[in-house]
Formats: sequence, C-alpha cells, structure tokens
Amino acid sequence: MHPYIAEALGTALLILFGNGVVANVVLSKSKANNGGWIVIALGWGLAVALAVYIVGRVSGAHINPAVTIGLASIGAFEWALVPGYVLSQIVGAFIGSTLVYLTFYAHWEETEDPALILACHSTSPAIRKMVPAFITEFIGTIILVFCVLALGKVAMGADSTQLAWASTMGTWFGPLLVGVLVLAIGLSLGGPTGYAINPARDLGPRIAHALLPIKGKGSSDWAYAWVPIVAPILGGIAGAQLFVFSAL
Amino acid sequence: MHPYIAEALGTALLILFGNGVVANVVLSKSKANNGGWIVIALGWGLAVALAVYIVGRVSGAHINPAVTIGLASIGAFEWALVPGYVLSQIVGAFIGSTLVYLTFYAHWEETEDPALILACHSTSPAIRKMVPAFITEFIGTIILVFCVLALGKVAMGADSTQLAWASTMGTWFGPLLVGVLVLAIGLSLGGPTGYAINPARDLGPRIAHALLPIKGKGSSDWAYAWVPIVAPILGGIAGAQLFVFSAL
Amino acid sequence: MHPYIAEALGTALLILFGNGVVANVVLSKSKANNGGWIVIALGWGLAVALAVYIVGRVSGAHINPAVTIGLASIGAFEWALVPGYVLSQIVGAFIGSTLVYLTFYAHWEETEDPALILACHSTSPAIRKMVPAFITEFIGTIILVFCVLALGKVAMGADSTQLAWASTMGTWFGPLLVGVLVLAIGLSLGGPTGYAINPARDLGPRIAHALLPIKGKGSSDWAYAWVPIVAPILGGIAGAQLFVFSAL
Amino acid sequence: MHPYIAEALGTALLILFGNGVVANVVLSKSKANNGGWIVIALGWGLAVALAVYIVGRVSGAHINPAVTIGLASIGAFEWALVPGYVLSQIVGAFIGSTLVYLTFYAHWEETEDPALILACHSTSPAIRKMVPAFITEFIGTIILVFCVLALGKVAMGADSTQLAWASTMGTWFGPLLVGVLVLAIGLSLGGPTGYAINPARDLGPRIAHALLPIKGKGSSDWAYAWVPIVAPILGGIAGAQLFVFSAL
Repeated sequence: MHPYIAEALGTALLILFGNGVVANVVLSKSKANNGGWIVIALGWGLAVALAVYIVGRVSGAHINPAVTIGLASIGAFEWALVPGYVLSQIVGAFIGSTLVYLTFYAHWEETEDPALILACHSTSPAIRKMVPAFITEFIGTIILVFCVLALGKVAMGADSTQLAWASTMGTWFGPLLVGVLVLAIGLSLGGPTGYAINPARDLGPRIAHALLPIKGKGSSDWAYAWVPIVAPILGGIAGAQLFVFSAL
Repeated sequence: MHPYIAEALGTALLILFGNGVVANVVLSKSKANNGGWIVIALGWGLAVALAVYIVGRVSGAHINPAVTIGLASIGAFEWALVPGYVLSQIVGAFIGSTLVYLTFYAHWEETEDPALILACHSTSPAIRKMVPAFITEFIGTIILVFCVLALGKVAMGADSTQLAWASTMGTWFGPLLVGVLVLAIGLSLGGPTGYAINPARDLGPRIAHALLPIKGKGSSDWAYAWVPIVAPILGGIAGAQLFVFSAL
Repeated sequence: MHPYIAEALGTALLILFGNGVVANVVLSKSKANNGGWIVIALGWGLAVALAVYIVGRVSGAHINPAVTIGLASIGAFEWALVPGYVLSQIVGAFIGSTLVYLTFYAHWEETEDPALILACHSTSPAIRKMVPAFITEFIGTIILVFCVLALGKVAMGADSTQLAWASTMGTWFGPLLVGVLVLAIGLSLGGPTGYAINPARDLGPRIAHALLPIKGKGSSDWAYAWVPIVAPILGGIAGAQLFVFSAL
Repeated sequence: MHPYIAEALGTALLILFGNGVVANVVLSKSKANNGGWIVIALGWGLAVALAVYIVGRVSGAHINPAVTIGLASIGAFEWALVPGYVLSQIVGAFIGSTLVYLTFYAHWEETEDPALILACHSTSPAIRKMVPAFITEFIGTIILVFCVLALGKVAMGADSTQLAWASTMGTWFGPLLVGVLVLAIGLSLGGPTGYAINPARDLGPRIAHALLPIKGKGSSDWAYAWVPIVAPILGGIAGAQLFVFSAL
C-alpha cells in the first residue's frame, strides 16, 4: 500500500470513529445521546489508536498535518513528502466524514440545532474568542507532538538514540500509547475548543459539511476555520523543536 | 474441545456479558440502572475480549457469522465448516440469553416498557427506517471485519504475510485488541441501531425472547429481524474483500 | 511473607479499594458522589487487579473463599490450607473495611440513609427476593471461577497443560486480566445483587459494620448474609468443575 | 537531561493533565463541563502514567515529594538529592498550573464560584474538618507509596530482590501500572479530600493561584495548605517503611 493511501485510510478511520462518537453523543434520538465527555474522549482516543495500528507500518500513521510538518521541521521526515501526506490526510478526513454522514443518515433531520450538526464535523470554541482558542489549540498540539515523540522513544526501549516515530508505530504497543495520549488530551484539555489539534481533522470534515446535502445543517463557520489549522501547525513545530531541545 | 462447542461457548459468553450489560443498565431497579452509554459500550467490548480469550485457541473465536462468512469469502476459512460454526453461534447466543434471563430473574416484571425488555435481547433501530438502519449495520460490520483482519496482522508482527485470524486469537494481546475495536464501534457508531453487527447476536436472543416465559414482554419485532442478519453478512463479506484488496 | 498474611493483605486491599469506591460514590458530600456505575465497576475491577498484582506471587491471590474452595474441589489447591486461607480472607476484609471507615470518617454522619452506609460494607439485593438473588450470585461466581481458570491458561501460553492459577498470578498480565474479568462481571451482571461473588468480601465488612461505631448506621441485615456466602461457594465449585469438564 | 529538570518537566505534565481535567470538568462553558468523577479520576491516572513514561528513565519520575522522601527513608534514594528533587517538583507544578491557566484562559471569568477556580489549582476537603482530612490523605499516600513499591517489584519480575523504582519506571509497563494505581486511588479514596497525596501537586498550584491574575479568583485557602503537605509526607514515609517491613 502506498503511504499516501495509508494516510488517507488512517485519517478516514480517525474521522469515522472520532466524528462518529460526537454524532453518537449529540445527535437527537441516538441511543448514545447525552453519553457524556468520557464517551467523547475515549472514542477519539480509540480512533487514533486504531488508525495508527492499521496504517502505522505503512506510512508511520501521522494522520495529522501538525505531526507531518512537526517531524519535517526537525529533519525526521522528508519535506518532499509533506504535500502528499497533508493532502491525503485532508482527503481521508473528507471520506471519513462522508461515512459518518451515511452511518447517521436518519438522525440529521431529527436534530434541531445546526450547531450540533456542525459539531459532528468540525470544531468550534466554547467561548467565541479567537486568541484564547488559538492558545488552547497551540498548547494542545505542542503537548501532542512533544509527548508522542517522547513516547516513541519509550516504546523503542531505553537504548535507542534515534527518532523513533515510524518504526514504533508498527509495534503493538506504540499505537495504544498514542491513543492513551489523545485520550488524556481530550479528558484534560479538550473543553475550550473541542481539541482539533489536527488541521486535517477539522478542515476535511468542514468541507464535507459544506458540500454534503445534510438535512438541517447551518453555516460551516469558515470564520473560525483558520484557528484549528494555523494553531496546530505552529504547535506541532513548536512541540517537535521542544522535543529536540529537551534532549530526552 | 470441539470447535463447534467452542463457538457456542464463546457466543454464550458474548451474549451473557453483552446482553447482560444492557439488562443491567435498562431494567428497572437494577443498581446499574441508567449507567450510561460508556457502561454499555465497555460491557460489549469486554464481552468480546473475554469470549475471544477463552475460546480463541480452539476455534479462532469468530463468535459471529459475519466473521465466519467473511473469512470464508476470501479463502481464509473452509466453507464446509461455515454451517456448523453459524449454527453453533446461534445456539450459543440462545444459551447466553437464557443465562441473562436467569441472572435478572426478578427484574423483568418490574420493568414496564416491553421495548426495554426486548432491548435486553435483540437490537432495534433508534429511528424506524429500514434503509438507514441497513446502511448503519452494513458500514459497522465492514469496519469490524476489515479492522479485525488488519489488527490480526499487527498482532502477528510486521513480517507476517499470511492471514492471521485463528492464530492471533490465541495470543494474549489479540483478544484485547478485538475488544477495543468493538468498544470503539459501540462508542462511535452504535447509536442508530444498537450495533448488532453480528447475526447470531441478534437472532439467537430474539428467539429466546420469543420462547422464554419473560414476564412483561411484548413483541419480538420479527419485522426488523432481517436487517441485523442480512446487513452484517454483506458487511462482513465486503470488509473481508476490502482487506484483501487493500493489500495491508 | 506467609501466604496467610498475603491473603489477608490482598483481601484488605481489595476491600479498601472496592468498598472505598462504593463509599466514594454513595456517601453524602463526597466529591465523587453520584459518580455512576462505571466508577463502581471500574473501582472494583482495579481493586482486584491491584490486590492480585501485589500478593499474587506469594499466595496466588485467591482473596476469595469461592476461588479457594473451587480450586480445592478440582485438586488444584490443598484442602489442608483452605481454612487458613478463608480465615485470612475474612480477617483481611475486616481490616480493609476498617480502613474505609477511617478514610471516609467525616462522611458517615452526613449520610442520612442507613442503607447507603450498609452498602459501603456488604451487599444487598435490589429486589428483596432470596431465590433470584441466590441465582444471580450463583451464576456470577460460576462465571468468575470458570473464566479465571480459562484466562489463567491463556496467560500461561498455548502449550501449557497444567492448571495455571498461582503461577499466572505472578505475571504482569494475569492480574490485569482478572481485573478486567471482574470489571466485566460488574458492568454486566452486578445490578441485581451488587455482585458479592465472594463470601469474605461480604462477611468481613458486614462484621465490621456490626462492630465499628459508625455514626448513622442501621441494621447489618444478617437475614440476607447467607446468600452471598452460600451461593458464591457453590458457584465457585460449579465453575471449577465446569472448567475441568470443558477440557479447555 | 538533568534529573532535576526531568522532575520539573514530569510534574509540569502531571499538573497540566491533572489540574487540566479538573478545569475541564468544573469551569463554566467548558464542553466537558459536568463530565463526572470518571473523567476526573481517569484524567489524573493518565496524567501520572504519561509523566512517568516521559521522564521515568531520567529521574525515576518521582514527581511527588512523598515518594522522594519515602524512598529516601528506606535507603532507596539519596538524601542529598531530596531538596533538589522536591524543589524541582514544586517549580514544575507551578509551571503546569500556569499552562492550565493559559489553556482555559477564557473560562475563568465565566466561572462564578471562586471555590471552583481554586479547585482547578489545589485541593480542599469536602467536609471542613482537619483531622478527618488529614487521616484520608495519610491513608491515601500510604497506599500510594506501598503499592507503587510493590508494583515496581512485580514489573521487575519474580526474581528481583532489590528495590526497583527507577529502573521499572523506564519500562513500558511500569508507568501504566502506576497510572492504574492512581486511577484506583482516585476512584475509591478521592472523594473526601480530592486526593492530593502529593505535596508538590497541591503547593505549587496554590502558589500559582495566589500569584496569577486569574479573573474571579477568591482566597487561596492557606489555612488548609498544611494538610496536603504534611499528611502525604508522613504517609509516604509510612508506606515505604511498611513495604520494607512486609518483606514482599
């Protein structure tokens, strides 16, 4: 399997499970309606773990432009592959979002609040202030990329001295650890913005929201769309730099 | 132990824990009443994990006709064994359902809504439209079988080139991963239909619901019964084909 | 450490964490008040896992007379040690219950319902009918002992042919699996009776409830006490016999 | 990386995830608002696990003066390093608290109850009685340090006879086990006091609460501050002594 296909497949699975859990909890008449934050956070954590298990050995399972660009910024990934990876991730996110649309087909028209329908696609800030939302996403992605690199070294064993991303993502334990990390970020830091911490996770489904004939949908809120793109990219670079600087 | 007995035992455990968790949460006066979707989804995930642990080495622990037929459709399981496996799974599901009946013996007559009593046996759609429910079950089972095959390869290690189902289900990590997968499917995709994604899981307990002298029970809703049979079988075949096609 | 001391220590930890989680959720003004069934079931599952980790290598961590007697009934444990094990388990449960009393010292008098105070010590049926409660405890303990023996073989690896209890409880994975099993039993089968499935877990704290100067306590409900003693013992024997019979 | 830096980094991560989860659940308008005790307890458990993964190989990841002093009291850690470790932990906790302040920047002024704002920093007793709170923190920390030492031996394997703290914290399984332990303590024993069980976890953020320009904040409640400092230190020493005495 070509790594670009793997990134698209992995990101599609990420969004199917990730936006799926949001739809499951917020859409009217779903049996999981009102399931609570533990369902949301665990759903996203497992979404990441499963996606990384399934495509980790093929592409390293970045499934996130902030990771791809962060790795490239420290020389751990080829810049020439960045555009293909990022494009595949966005396409995969769009496909995953379409699968969520189909899976919950009967529930869209039952849901009265268009903001809930948008929430099954892309993120929005709990309090509509751009700078605080930017800071939250920036810190969240620093933590994501810094920790994922540090955990990669742990999973490789104590004697490893090289960057360990792609190889550890092909082990049985690496993907689970990354899922646990994303679970922790969701549980602890996700409330202010819905923790995009991933430009493709937000942009692909926002495009899907705009294009798909979803009954009852409202605005795709493009005014906010730049925050979960720019802040995670800068956070990913900062987190990767911090990891190198820390000499962990 | 004969593989047919193992499939019956595994499916009985699956249903005891799986329908047990539904009964625990929805039946009146249960201490777990109103326990929430996290309890339901985790209960089903662990039901699968435990069943696979216990009979995985004997029969591969399909415990699901969609898996059995999906594997057979790609040459990874003998067609001659399919009828015996599927029948054992349905019988096992009936036995598991009977154990749930006994475990919650005092609670049936305390529960006023017959729909809740049926929910402790077989699935029903949250919104009563057949085509959307079919699509949800179809997508859910594609994901189940595709991912379980992909995870099987992961658990086998990077150098494996053969289909890995039966052998990985005898390892300590394979069953846990399959349980995590079913947990994720429940958390993220389970709300519209209650995620049968398994014809035996739905049919066996529906027969039990029809036959057992459950106080306060209503219709067994046979009009819906074909959806969680046909859609998972087609989804299982599609998921297995997709796995082969993906060359993961 | 003498195995009897290990059983007392393990059971004390079991009850400290197990009855602790009940107290945490049901006692008035606790920050975890109304935390839900997921908290209860996960707390008990981890109580078992931690107790088994800590004393598993010393005594096999039965921490449950139903396990001790069940193992003895199939020749997997010496009858001569049974009285010492069981007594140690009851003493340990009493000590654990006393630690719960101290940990929640300020909360007893704030809690108005004596039934909630008793629930932090021993179990009671959700519906006060003895035969159904007996059946629930009987089935629950069959499942506990049958599965724990089967999981023991899994954790030992595919080639093991001997009973694997004590040795697997000294591995890193065995205790976690047993905790997962108890979590599953709680999630799925715990609602009708509060899943004692362990005579010492119920009797030791009931004695503590009777003896300790707990403010606001009511009856220790000795009329029900025989059910969570007799049913688990018979269930433990039945589960062990079933395991041998199954030839898993 | 210098072990002092590692302790500061590890404690900063602990507080970012740990106080982050409290802020996520209690601050007004957070999407995780009212997420429940399972979110709180799991968030703190993962906070510990991640911090220990990331700095365990460098410093042993005490991230808690009660652990540092407890280990020193049994000769398992050099007294000469204790002041540097403890100071680093407090500084790290202050930094982590500042990151929480920034992550939830827009939410402080939306939150009307100053007690909730303080709860995102340091602990307070559910019932304002000093002796019971002291006892709860004392018992909680005994259990923490006793169990963590015992689990360290388990993770090292059955034949180890030496104290195993620093080395096991560099394995892939040790940190997860410690996180599970803290999850269990939170689920089961955390309700009366909010389970500081760590002087740095309480003092560093309390200083941050006093110094940072948090909108809507009230008193930093210095009258209670000694309890989560003194009780955990004494509990840590007692737990370590108990472990040696137990000869586990």
